[in-house]
Amino acid sequence: MNNSFFSRFAPKQPKFFPLLQSLAETLLKAAETFLEGIEYPTVEKRAEYYKLVKDIERKGDEINTTIHNELASSFITPFDREDIHHLAAAIDDTIDGINSVAKRINIYNPKPLPEEASKMAQVILQEAQFIVKAISGLVDVHKNGSEILKCANELHELENKGDDIYELFIIRLFEEEKDGIELMKVKEIMHEMEQTTDAAEHVGKCLKSILVKYI
Amino acid sequence: MNNSFFSRFAPKQPKFFPLLQSLAETLLKAAETFLEGIEYPTVEKRAEYYKLVKDIERKGDEINTTIHNELASSFITPFDREDIHHLAAAIDDTIDGINSVAKRINIYNPKPLPEEASKMAQVILQEAQFIVKAISGLVDVHKNGSEILKCANELHELENKGDDIYELFIIRLFEEEKDGIELMKVKEIMHEMEQTTDAAEHVGKCLKSILVKYI
Amino acid sequence: MNNSFFSRFAPKQPKFFPLLQSLAETLLKAAETFLEGIEYPTVEKRAEYYKLVKDIERKGDEINTTIHNELASSFITPFDREDIHHLAAAIDDTIDGINSVAKRINIYNPKPLPEEASKMAQVILQEAQFIVKAISGLVDVHKNGSEILKCANELHELENKGDDIYELFIIRLFEEEKDGIELMKVKEIMHEMEQTTDAAEHVGKCLKSILVKYI
Repeated sequence: MNNSFFSRFAPKQPKFFPLLQSLAETLLKAAETFLEGIEYPTVEKRAEYYKLVKDIERKGDEINTTIHNELASSFITPFDREDIHHLAAAIDDTIDGINSVAKRINIYNPKPLPEEASKMAQVILQEAQFIVKAISGLVDVHKNGSEILKCANELHELENKGDDIYELFIIRLFEEEKDGIELMKVKEIMHEMEQTTDAAEHVGKCLKSILVKYI
Repeated sequence: MNNSFFSRFAPKQPKFFPLLQSLAETLLKAAETFLEGIEYPTVEKRAEYYKLVKDIERKGDEINTTIHNELASSFITPFDREDIHHLAAAIDDTIDGINSVAKRINIYNPKPLPEEASKMAQVILQEAQFIVKAISGLVDVHKNGSEILKCANELHELENKGDDIYELFIIRLFEEEKDGIELMKVKEIMHEMEQTTDAAEHVGKCLKSILVKYI
Repeated sequence: MNNSFFSRFAPKQPKFFPLLQSLAETLLKAAETFLEGIEYPTVEKRAEYYKLVKDIERKGDEINTTIHNELASSFITPFDREDIHHLAAAIDDTIDGINSVAKRINIYNPKPLPEEASKMAQVILQEAQFIVKAISGLVDVHKNGSEILKCANELHELENKGDDIYELFIIRLFEEEKDGIELMKVKEIMHEMEQTTDAAEHVGKCLKSILVKYI
């Protein structure tokens, strides 16, 4: 176990696990709040939910900064440091993605969103759930390695599902929506959601790089 | 002072300070030129100012390449190298952002820009001023640490101000502008400016990572 | 030759050269297929070529993942590792760019594309050819250094050419195209192509960083 993730990483830096866990749970909270808010088509509700998501996003930023500063000031090998840094940054990017969609819904104020928007928000929520599960396994990567790998593969599948929803929706949108400004609004909102599913898949890629090295 | 920024970094590599200073001043020059040019709504003036900004951006590229090559060929610890690399890249990205806005104003040729465009250009100029100030302090990070931190915090505040200007403007734009093509032009120009304020804030984040490590 | 690219890198890790070569050839195949497909304006042909490009892009992803995993599990100095990693990532990003354009042509289904689209696709193809040539020289960087540098400079020239084609086209597009939705489609497709020429130039920058260090 000399070269393992556990021996290199966990005993020296136990504080990073609760921080990563807390960041993943912040992502889950953002995804849940966003899905709930997406149903309401009024200006007031959209502004209200954007504020909620924005507050969660700021909390995520703070946790990410704490992780970043702890990494900078801890004695830890550069290799491990980079892994934790990339993982935290990828989770933070996913939260930023959700915030970015919520912001656009608020400031563009489009007509009621298509059902594909809810489907995409559900994909993002499922991704967040797999990320929380995977991160909770990191504390003992040997025991939980295959479970973490399964989560990373699920993230890949969900990203593909998001791609398909997006592509079919855009084809339909360009056929049906003749109001250029409305089309631009909805296209950009859906595109940001698709980018968010990519960001979540990237968390899975970071997890896979850790597994390759430490198992 | 064994582990300090100064002892690790400055005496070994004094050449990096004038290079970073020169890069920051190039950013300031780009921001000043851009603000001046934004007022002129004619095709000719827009082309003229884009050319001026583009020349400055190329100068920035050259300085950044010099820094990059000096880092690659210098004996210096990887840790310090990464810090300087990220800082220079972040300043260069801010210059690129200004160039990108000037380019779009030139090739899209929108109607006279809204007053929010000048406000954003002023935010970018103020950011550039704080960046020049902070970089000039790096040569003695112990003495100037609190001043540099203050600059980084100002960059954060200015980015928030840019966000607010952008969001309120977009809400108004979608309510008032009924010409889809004109809306697209102005929205993208303003969005690039908002991204540029983000890039400048990122310089502040790079400065904060240096402070965390070396003070 | 103690500190050379060859001595540090090649003898220890001969497997990386065929992998990088294979990735560069995958890029070339993507660029060729894309140029061929761009001529056909029907929905069926566009879907068919997008499928072809997508399959090539997935092959590129697999090679990139293999390189990434080999790097993670190989004993190799971090410095070399980062160089290979950045180079492979930059080639992969160029393939992703081509895939992204093919996808947009498929899902937006614009009117027949302007001749500038073919010109840009030819620029991308030429870039891919220089990348294949440069990568094939890496196996003996001392012998081929000046040839590799020439390729990197050609990539820079081609990116400038792509910029010019794009900028002149956009000026014309905003003057001539009065259908906002059609304009949006073509603008975004051309912009993705211009970004792809940037991604290819970035491969040249990665090559230059290697040359600076190892020659």
